[in-house]
Amino acid sequence: MSASVEIICIGTELLIGKTLNTNAHWLAKRITTLGLNVRRITNTADDIDEISSTLKEALQRKPRFIITTGGLGPTFDDKTLEGIAKGLKRKIKINDNALKMVEKTYSRYVEEKLIEKVELTPPRVKMAKLPEGANPLPNPIGTAPAVLIEHEGTTIIALPGVPAEMEAIFEESVVQILKKTAGDATFFETSIYVLGVMESVIAPLIDQVMHNNPYVYIKSHPGREGEKKPRLELHLTTTAKDLKLAKNRVGKALIEITELVQQKGGKTRSSKEVAEEA
Amino acid sequence: MSASVEIICIGTELLIGKTLNTNAHWLAKRITTLGLNVRRITNTADDIDEISSTLKEALQRKPRFIITTGGLGPTFDDKTLEGIAKGLKRKIKINDNALKMVEKTYSRYVEEKLIEKVELTPPRVKMAKLPEGANPLPNPIGTAPAVLIEHEGTTIIALPGVPAEMEAIFEESVVQILKKTAGDATFFETSIYVLGVMESVIAPLIDQVMHNNPYVYIKSHPGREGEKKPRLELHLTTTAKDLKLAKNRVGKALIEITELVQQKGGKTRSSKEVAEEA
Repeated sequence: MSASVEIICIGTELLIGKTLNTNAHWLAKRITTLGLNVRRITNTADDIDEISSTLKEALQRKPRFIITTGGLGPTFDDKTLEGIAKGLKRKIKINDNALKMVEKTYSRYVEEKLIEKVELTPPRVKMAKLPEGANPLPNPIGTAPAVLIEHEGTTIIALPGVPAEMEAIFEESVVQILKKTAGDATFFETSIYVLGVMESVIAPLIDQVMHNNPYVYIKSHPGREGEKKPRLELHLTTTAKDLKLAKNRVGKALIEITELVQQKGGKTRSSKEVAEEA
Repeated sequence: MSASVEIICIGTELLIGKTLNTNAHWLAKRITTLGLNVRRITNTADDIDEISSTLKEALQRKPRFIITTGGLGPTFDDKTLEGIAKGLKRKIKINDNALKMVEKTYSRYVEEKLIEKVELTPPRVKMAKLPEGANPLPNPIGTAPAVLIEHEGTTIIALPGVPAEMEAIFEESVVQILKKTAGDATFFETSIYVLGVMESVIAPLIDQVMHNNPYVYIKSHPGREGEKKPRLELHLTTTAKDLKLAKNRVGKALIEITELVQQKGGKTRSSKEVAEEA
């Protein structure tokens, strides 16, 4: 079983439908591709108690990693680190390394003539106040450092909410941490498209193939509206210890499901054929 | 305090990053606009135990509504109703009204010559197997009915995952249920854009205005990359018992924050001005 990850996205803008959660989508894809298993994604409000209780509930499920996004900035509504500290019952205090990172960024802003001089005002110092025992991760393109905390077998990593900053820190610092745990585990996916057979007819065939191929997960997705011919996507995925094994497993299941669909009078198309038809 | 809602999106495709969760975004915006308060959004896997435990955890937080999306179809991986039944410790059995809805849809497919005759195969009957005490809600454009269940003060509504079906059922059946609870509560939002002042300078001003205007929530969002002039969006929201009160509250806070920004040497732009500049 691959190492489990929970994603917690912090931001009231997600709960009022102001912002589409592209961060969760990006992280889920990236983490899955690295061979880990995203078990749950939770969106919660900019509120210390909500963040604290969301974190505590996630910790009870004992994931190997919890990755949060959002709420690390200088403003009043950036409450992630206070929420995490409350959830872990740790004090929050200025971390010297984090403060150096913040100071360095404002020095760069002076060089770039965005500001006249470095003033470490309370909102700026706030970004360096971490839960005790936490370590900052550098933010190569923004101000607020990311934060790494070990807690009873779970590694908590708090990333900023600005997508470009989140992605940059993930690639620079988080990938290597996750890879070390995932080892050689590899995720592999492919899709075929079925025409001429309804989903309710395909259902028992999927069941049968998944029963024969216990490591392969097959999910059917109805075609999009407006398509000329309604077609069903069958998405096959697996995570295995190496790519060759993963491809072999998916390939075997793909042949089986294709044969069964054809026996029911249906046609199948590869992703490539569908792309060419469009 | 407005009535609270939790959204639970069921689908492994969300956890592996295959699908961007536009359903949660659409629902959050729509529910907020109706005057209710979305407290949490959770994405969980197509797995009976995961669905059951996600539901039980949400019920412990005692929201007025839980709205789920996904997992109502005919295939093996559609496990929402089994998961809900397990979470509520209810049996699952064929619901006569739901079966009539499913049968009616397949009769329509016969009329439209998509299939030759109505056969209620096990995968099709599966869509009419509901937790005991549940009621189906008609699906005007797809096959699987939605499901409504009352449980210890929480109303659970299970919607399909196909966006067009989810939205159609929401508009046809769910809006009136939510409105009855929300009463006249109204959500109001507006944004202004700040130029020439950094977020870390604005932070204490927001704090001050929110302190003076306890019913107004102000959140700052850094400008998008690639913008010529970096500008900060200040997004002001409130939910009040009528629109006039909501607008008055937001208007007062807007004037205060604009004055404070100008005192710091910053400029403000309305959404309209920003749109015209673009």
